[in-house]
Amino acid sequence: MRLVTYRATIEAEARLGAVVGDLVVDMERYGLSQGVSLPARMLDFIAMGPHVVFAVTALFEQTGDRWPIGTTLPLVNVRLLAPIPRPNKNIFGIGLNYIDHVAESAKALDTSPDLPRQPVIFSKPPTTVVGPGDPIVHHADITAQLDWEVELGAIIGRTARRVSLSDALSYVFGYTLMLDMSARDCRRAGQWIYSKGQDSYAPMGPCIVTADELPDPQTLDIWLTVNGVEKQRSNTSHMLFKVNELISDISQGITLEPGDIIATGTPEGVGAGRSPQEWLVPGDVIECGLEHIGELRHAVIAG
Amino acid sequence: MRLVTYRATIEAEARLGAVVGDLVVDMERYGLSQGVSLPARMLDFIAMGPHVVFAVTALFEQTGDRWPIGTTLPLVNVRLLAPIPRPNKNIFGIGLNYIDHVAESAKALDTSPDLPRQPVIFSKPPTTVVGPGDPIVHHADITAQLDWEVELGAIIGRTARRVSLSDALSYVFGYTLMLDMSARDCRRAGQWIYSKGQDSYAPMGPCIVTADELPDPQTLDIWLTVNGVEKQRSNTSHMLFKVNELISDISQGITLEPGDIIATGTPEGVGAGRSPQEWLVPGDVIECGLEHIGELRHAVIAG
Repeated sequence: MRLVTYRATIEAEARLGAVVGDLVVDMERYGLSQGVSLPARMLDFIAMGPHVVFAVTALFEQTGDRWPIGTTLPLVNVRLLAPIPRPNKNIFGIGLNYIDHVAESAKALDTSPDLPRQPVIFSKPPTTVVGPGDPIVHHADITAQLDWEVELGAIIGRTARRVSLSDALSYVFGYTLMLDMSARDCRRAGQWIYSKGQDSYAPMGPCIVTADELPDPQTLDIWLTVNGVEKQRSNTSHMLFKVNELISDISQGITLEPGDIIATGTPEGVGAGRSPQEWLVPGDVIECGLEHIGELRHAVIAG
Repeated sequence: MRLVTYRATIEAEARLGAVVGDLVVDMERYGLSQGVSLPARMLDFIAMGPHVVFAVTALFEQTGDRWPIGTTLPLVNVRLLAPIPRPNKNIFGIGLNYIDHVAESAKALDTSPDLPRQPVIFSKPPTTVVGPGDPIVHHADITAQLDWEVELGAIIGRTARRVSLSDALSYVFGYTLMLDMSARDCRRAGQWIYSKGQDSYAPMGPCIVTADELPDPQTLDIWLTVNGVEKQRSNTSHMLFKVNELISDISQGITLEPGDIIATGTPEGVGAGRSPQEWLVPGDVIECGLEHIGELRHAVIAG
């Protein structure tokens, strides 16, 4: 399933939907039509456990294209939000997780040229999350080095505590597309949260594709342009630590919970790694995409 | 007010209470007795805004010691939990925020001997939080360098966005005592979240003292012992960045929200800074205290 959080009108409440063709099927209303209780919010749906994806998929197959009255809206006519508009904790970010990005980062920033031997983890507060099309806010008084990073996001589906490499992917609910916006000059004593944790620094969407439809997350083309010029193009096959390694590693010390988000790192091509370096300013437009997931477009505005 | 989260029995739900003398007054039940709606959970109480503290304080004064039937329990007979058992996002931690700790850290770890010019921020996931008396879990397969850090915790009371130094303290709901447990050998490429973010690494309590009762948070004695031997003793007056500076600084880029927690940094005397270095092992017992707030006692156990 392709799951979204949407508003039917600008003021309407944020609701969980599934994209089927050119329609958004409202999950709660569809459930009511089938006599089953389904939630109106993504985090509640994820918390029901992996079986619910299979159950709803089976119901959809029975329904075919005979959607009950009042359960669908045209996709082009709704406003999409971040699939998880408000996570229950900070996003787990992974640094230096594509080999060529380790090299460009060591050249341009203060990181080591050696490949990390373990995943490099940081976090982004829930207040960083914005949805498709929302502006990215540039505060000129605190950064002159706003940079882009396009990433695969993995959403955890069930509680993961000290899970093995071979089991780890079974803990994934689904995948999404994310930007890990980074104000390079806001690092402090090497800590990244202030550089990566500012409001609007985690655009996310346009949907979550559930893991049953994407059994191998390490085969996906990923790209980003700034003002129409390609800056990043890679494939998730080039990740240093694969999604299963990230989940297994983090869960050895930190319990992962349903709805947790892991931003799995960015490939080479960030602004800091260019000669001369390139930084975003108000008016710039970022577009990015992830194979099988979709695309995002965000303008940078002055704060 | 001295606010706690408590269970009346081992299996009972976690509920919000106020400590008055040797009693815990159940907030929701007391409200019912007065014909006003008060919540059963700390985060809901904080979200009501600063006026609710003054309103309930005034009601308590009217009540005197004539507590309505069924609204109190003996403090010695309840189980205290962390005042906020499950924060809505990661705890904001502040590193290198006491001058003498900057020196010992530079000697023993990989940090700079220069005083930070801006607060050094990191985070601890909600899953780190445990309550008074709960064990701290030591996973011998991932750390041989578990260390202690005792800290003043500041709880945000209302949404703070780009607030000034002079206004910043008005955004504080109250204060608590925290431990920022740190596995020094779990830092990764300099990032601290895995060293400070493991399950049980944020003991918190025993209460939140509301800000009206603690107008100056920079005058508090703070101390910690391991197995009865004093390791840390200082005063919050020695903080490099005071609570108002931390709030103003963070809020320039990151919106702070009601219930957010800032662990404001630890004074000198951590295990890493000693000669020879000292690390915690299962069986060790940490006791710590913060003036006007209270004390905590935690045993280290094998994971």
